[in-house]
Amino acid sequence: MPFISDDFLLHNKTASRLYHEIAAQEPIIDYHNHLNPADVADNRRFANLHALWLEGDHYKWRGMRAAGVSETYITGEASPYEKFQAWAEVVPQTLRNPLYHWTHLELKRIFGIDTLLNADTAQEIWDEAGRQLAGPNFGATDLLRKFHVGTLCTTDDPTDSLEHHTRFRQTSGLALRMHPTFRPDKAFGVDQPDSFRKWCGLLESASGLSTATFTEFLATLDARLDYFHHEGCRLSDHGLERAHALPCTEHEASTIFERARSGLAATPIEREKYASYVLHHLCKRYCEKGWVQQFHLGAIRNNNPRLRREVGADCGCDSIGDFSHAVPLSRLLGQLDDADQLAKTILYNLNPADNYVLATMAGNFQGALTPGRVQWGAAWWFLDQKEGIEWHLNNLSSLGLLSTFVGFLTDSRSFGSFCRHEYFRRVLCNLIGQDIEKGEIPADDCLVGDLIRRLCHGNAHAWFPFEKGMA
Amino acid sequence: MPFISDDFLLHNKTASRLYHEIAAQEPIIDYHNHLNPADVADNRRFANLHALWLEGDHYKWRGMRAAGVSETYITGEASPYEKFQAWAEVVPQTLRNPLYHWTHLELKRIFGIDTLLNADTAQEIWDEAGRQLAGPNFGATDLLRKFHVGTLCTTDDPTDSLEHHTRFRQTSGLALRMHPTFRPDKAFGVDQPDSFRKWCGLLESASGLSTATFTEFLATLDARLDYFHHEGCRLSDHGLERAHALPCTEHEASTIFERARSGLAATPIEREKYASYVLHHLCKRYCEKGWVQQFHLGAIRNNNPRLRREVGADCGCDSIGDFSHAVPLSRLLGQLDDADQLAKTILYNLNPADNYVLATMAGNFQGALTPGRVQWGAAWWFLDQKEGIEWHLNNLSSLGLLSTFVGFLTDSRSFGSFCRHEYFRRVLCNLIGQDIEKGEIPADDCLVGDLIRRLCHGNAHAWFPFEKGMA
Amino acid sequence: MPFISDDFLLHNKTASRLYHEIAAQEPIIDYHNHLNPADVADNRRFANLHALWLEGDHYKWRGMRAAGVSETYITGEASPYEKFQAWAEVVPQTLRNPLYHWTHLELKRIFGIDTLLNADTAQEIWDEAGRQLAGPNFGATDLLRKFHVGTLCTTDDPTDSLEHHTRFRQTSGLALRMHPTFRPDKAFGVDQPDSFRKWCGLLESASGLSTATFTEFLATLDARLDYFHHEGCRLSDHGLERAHALPCTEHEASTIFERARSGLAATPIEREKYASYVLHHLCKRYCEKGWVQQFHLGAIRNNNPRLRREVGADCGCDSIGDFSHAVPLSRLLGQLDDADQLAKTILYNLNPADNYVLATMAGNFQGALTPGRVQWGAAWWFLDQKEGIEWHLNNLSSLGLLSTFVGFLTDSRSFGSFCRHEYFRRVLCNLIGQDIEKGEIPADDCLVGDLIRRLCHGNAHAWFPFEKGMA
Repeated sequence: MPFISDDFLLHNKTASRLYHEIAAQEPIIDYHNHLNPADVADNRRFANLHALWLEGDHYKWRGMRAAGVSETYITGEASPYEKFQAWAEVVPQTLRNPLYHWTHLELKRIFGIDTLLNADTAQEIWDEAGRQLAGPNFGATDLLRKFHVGTLCTTDDPTDSLEHHTRFRQTSGLALRMHPTFRPDKAFGVDQPDSFRKWCGLLESASGLSTATFTEFLATLDARLDYFHHEGCRLSDHGLERAHALPCTEHEASTIFERARSGLAATPIEREKYASYVLHHLCKRYCEKGWVQQFHLGAIRNNNPRLRREVGADCGCDSIGDFSHAVPLSRLLGQLDDADQLAKTILYNLNPADNYVLATMAGNFQGALTPGRVQWGAAWWFLDQKEGIEWHLNNLSSLGLLSTFVGFLTDSRSFGSFCRHEYFRRVLCNLIGQDIEKGEIPADDCLVGDLIRRLCHGNAHAWFPFEKGMA
Repeated sequence: MPFISDDFLLHNKTASRLYHEIAAQEPIIDYHNHLNPADVADNRRFANLHALWLEGDHYKWRGMRAAGVSETYITGEASPYEKFQAWAEVVPQTLRNPLYHWTHLELKRIFGIDTLLNADTAQEIWDEAGRQLAGPNFGATDLLRKFHVGTLCTTDDPTDSLEHHTRFRQTSGLALRMHPTFRPDKAFGVDQPDSFRKWCGLLESASGLSTATFTEFLATLDARLDYFHHEGCRLSDHGLERAHALPCTEHEASTIFERARSGLAATPIEREKYASYVLHHLCKRYCEKGWVQQFHLGAIRNNNPRLRREVGADCGCDSIGDFSHAVPLSRLLGQLDDADQLAKTILYNLNPADNYVLATMAGNFQGALTPGRVQWGAAWWFLDQKEGIEWHLNNLSSLGLLSTFVGFLTDSRSFGSFCRHEYFRRVLCNLIGQDIEKGEIPADDCLVGDLIRRLCHGNAHAWFPFEKGMA
Repeated sequence: MPFISDDFLLHNKTASRLYHEIAAQEPIIDYHNHLNPADVADNRRFANLHALWLEGDHYKWRGMRAAGVSETYITGEASPYEKFQAWAEVVPQTLRNPLYHWTHLELKRIFGIDTLLNADTAQEIWDEAGRQLAGPNFGATDLLRKFHVGTLCTTDDPTDSLEHHTRFRQTSGLALRMHPTFRPDKAFGVDQPDSFRKWCGLLESASGLSTATFTEFLATLDARLDYFHHEGCRLSDHGLERAHALPCTEHEASTIFERARSGLAATPIEREKYASYVLHHLCKRYCEKGWVQQFHLGAIRNNNPRLRREVGADCGCDSIGDFSHAVPLSRLLGQLDDADQLAKTILYNLNPADNYVLATMAGNFQGALTPGRVQWGAAWWFLDQKEGIEWHLNNLSSLGLLSTFVGFLTDSRSFGSFCRHEYFRRVLCNLIGQDIEKGEIPADDCLVGDLIRRLCHGNAHAWFPFEKGMA
């Protein structure tokens, strides 16, 4: 029997039935990822497994570093095949890590390869995958079709022209829908005046508007938001250590902004006040536009200054912080709700020790006739492996309504990673099947089938505010 | 087979035997709840399932809001049946939430109803339950007798006359014992002078004593404590974000008190100092009286200002905080123990991420010839579901002596919620049965039977200092 | 069947095979414990079970206090047999606590006793164990040989002469290797000038050098470090609430040091700055010497002032803190790595809520051609029981490379506690066996056998920098 068998992760008969008859049939709405929209618009071809797998996947880079592989073979000067060979040697050392599962799930689903990857099989797998990648139907959108992806949302800077989104929408002719996501993290960078000023320049170029004063700056952000909306964007996203929720007057925010524009770095407290003002401003706009707002909370980034300098950001040296979230989140969401300005919201935490805090915080702001208005978001980044997904599903079930959950997302930079939706669905069906077999939920196919369909696709389809014909 | 089968939650034969032969036989000591003592004294009748279930149960309200139900059908103007119908429609959406289990457990145990509640069965269940509620033996104390409740402790403000307790004790003639609990949270409210002054007024009315000076205020609290003691109270309770343990002189506390009495709000640090002084004062008194003191730590309350304003406090918008507990708890308990003034204590945490902190903190202050003198309290509020209870039992087992645990409590406002003792006992027996079948504890009925009996009733009976004939 | 059966903790056939055929065969490298090196050098004999078990084991003391035993029978004036009898009475009350398992595992492995310990069997077990302890082959090193211990590392103050290490190395003739560990916690005590000055005096006596100035103090520490290296030490260890990582100039550190030497206590912030400077200095030295550095993070100590005064430190009144670790750890490790001064490192956390934070922080500083250069350390102290070990193994697997983990350690003061390596290996084999039987890792004996061998012995053997012939 191959390692990735039909019943991989499905440890009871009910689970197997629920997965194969229901979950596997549903299309994918991948509402948050970091794919390059140009790759989608171009139906990018992949020269080899290195291009598909290793070019930008910091999960694999971390695994290789942990195994003691030289940076030369990770992000350095080695050839694509040398890097792949180095990775192949590491794969057997990733036993019990999700990389071991994902690697073989991708080999199976993309290439039909059942061989386990290791030093000995590296060449054979490289060759076979390369042969297939060179054939027809192995471009980026071909892979997405293979995975049954109906909708995807990329993550985009407000200065982005969205040209690839426009081009794809106007020319592809595919059923696939691709939407941008408005992610204005750089609008908060008053503590780093040089890059902040540079970014303001890009914003001016993109918009043709001035950002000389704080009022103009906000108006320009608003204009970009309108432009994103016009280009099909219905989601925003913020990557934050913690929610910003300090009191800050417009005058204070303006002063901090002007000092940053003139080259003076904001202090931490000034940065926090300024960010609170700008975030609150943007959240109101999201609500007006009928968007979904996402908060990705709790990463601590660029921990390794040497690799930051030598390789850059997002190179696999971010990790999980231990910040306190309850008080600022309560304030931010409470103020917005109280002013009837709370958009549909997804709260993601990176530290699983915060699961119960975020799950119950979401529960304070429900209602408004929207099922699951405030979502406690899916297991994310370091958490999107089996134990992380199980914790999320179980914790959410215990504290809120699992049935309103809008489901999984890849958060990925890789076209192979859509297998993780299958991974999630297998874990989900396994839990539900187990509950049924233990008599902890009724063996009612109508009730349970509906739940599975909702979590795989139905809830996301109903909840995200994409225009008719857009989702 | 009905959903609530005989072996509901009991997944091995040993578990089934332990539950049915031992656990199910034990009476209930519900040493902490929020029942209305008037309902007990009056043997209140319930007009219908809305009165029994939905009138004050913020668990269900949260579930309904999460499903997108309008507030009209939750706390608003809709009729009792309309609200029940709205709840019935939500029930199938609570799959995997404890509400799904509790709902059907209550239907079964109170009314013998096996039908699953949903939109289609709502009318039939409403009618049948209504019919039974109108018959004999469905008053509040009848329900308590049905659940085999021997003792219960309500939660009472120091300004309360305890008239219903007195009346019940003097007139009921039932074997049931009801004790008040002294919960002086409002004695700490110097940051909200208006409500604080109002509360001091109530305290004066209740006691006939002055609270004009800080010395008088403390003396009046002490007098109420004596009065509570006289009325059978042997427990205190504090709902705290964190333990208060800042150094504070009597002069400082007195100054802060006087400013609050004159309308000036204490700053956060002043509030903390004042609260540390008052808490320490009260803890000494609890020890002198031979009481049990309870600390419910870590809720963050009234997060939703709109619903706070429109519906009120305790409406389902409290959630789990992420405060640091170790240092202040260590200080408070250490100072009390060092002065030989540490009463029997129960420490409850709301954030399960604090489980190991509190379980080991309790272990620092054991001894004094009392088994389990400082208890790490039962899974509480958001935690009193299957995973929360299992974590508590497993964590306590790993870090302390499970055998000294005084057992479960409902913390509930609802007469139906006594089913949760059954729920707890099933979860407990399931874990213990599993351990026996895996050979991780000896298959010794004497050893294990004694443990089960202790955790269901025996420890609570021995540990709580109710007077002879009172428990 | 005896309680400690052949398949104790092994709940599937694969687990049983992996344990008995592979794990049980591997020798032990116990790279961190608190054994008394004199006991090893002297091949200390134990008069009775009290001497072996109860003389210094604060785990058992905590259990006895929780059961309400008088301090007289714990650390007080009672006779050794009375204390043992008191412990025996508590044992049945420790059901589900690791003490129950460890107690019977030690009785079985050391004495071949299968009888369960309780009040009734106490005398018989005391007598039988005493008889065996009086016979040949029951000295300290005999026990270590029985447990197949190849290498052990004690924990030693820089002022220690290491005479017992020297004597043992020069005279024992055993295959067993014993190394000291450099643990300079007292070098940080500028907040307690009296004991700090006393310790500086001991440091001067041990080294024959002056510590009058800060420069001399650091040079003397360095000299002791060199001496430890000469005596076979290759590990350092620090017990810290949190990593120290505040900016501090040499001048500032020197001023704080001088004030402490003159009797003035450092403020908390001064203590933190000074500690940051000294820690950074030492870490650089560890790297230069090619040592391993260990950080034991997050204990909160001496919580009970009464028992601190009456019994002393390390009496069972330490517990788990809830400190924030991510930021200071990131800074400390980042600065060291950036300057190419990061030694091989083990990060241990005491609060399991920090598991994901530390596991991912370790992943930021991998590489440098060393597999597992920065280790997220084994389940420690309160965590070295079944659920703690399982969490560690599962969390590490999910977030890093389990295959690079250097394995278990006892951290113990007791010669009987080496059974915990068996305990760890059984838990490990049970998890791996379960994964294989569920098809979540391939049923490949070569792959899995190699993993088991590495985690039991191979990784530690390869990773720790003991000299050839030293490990």
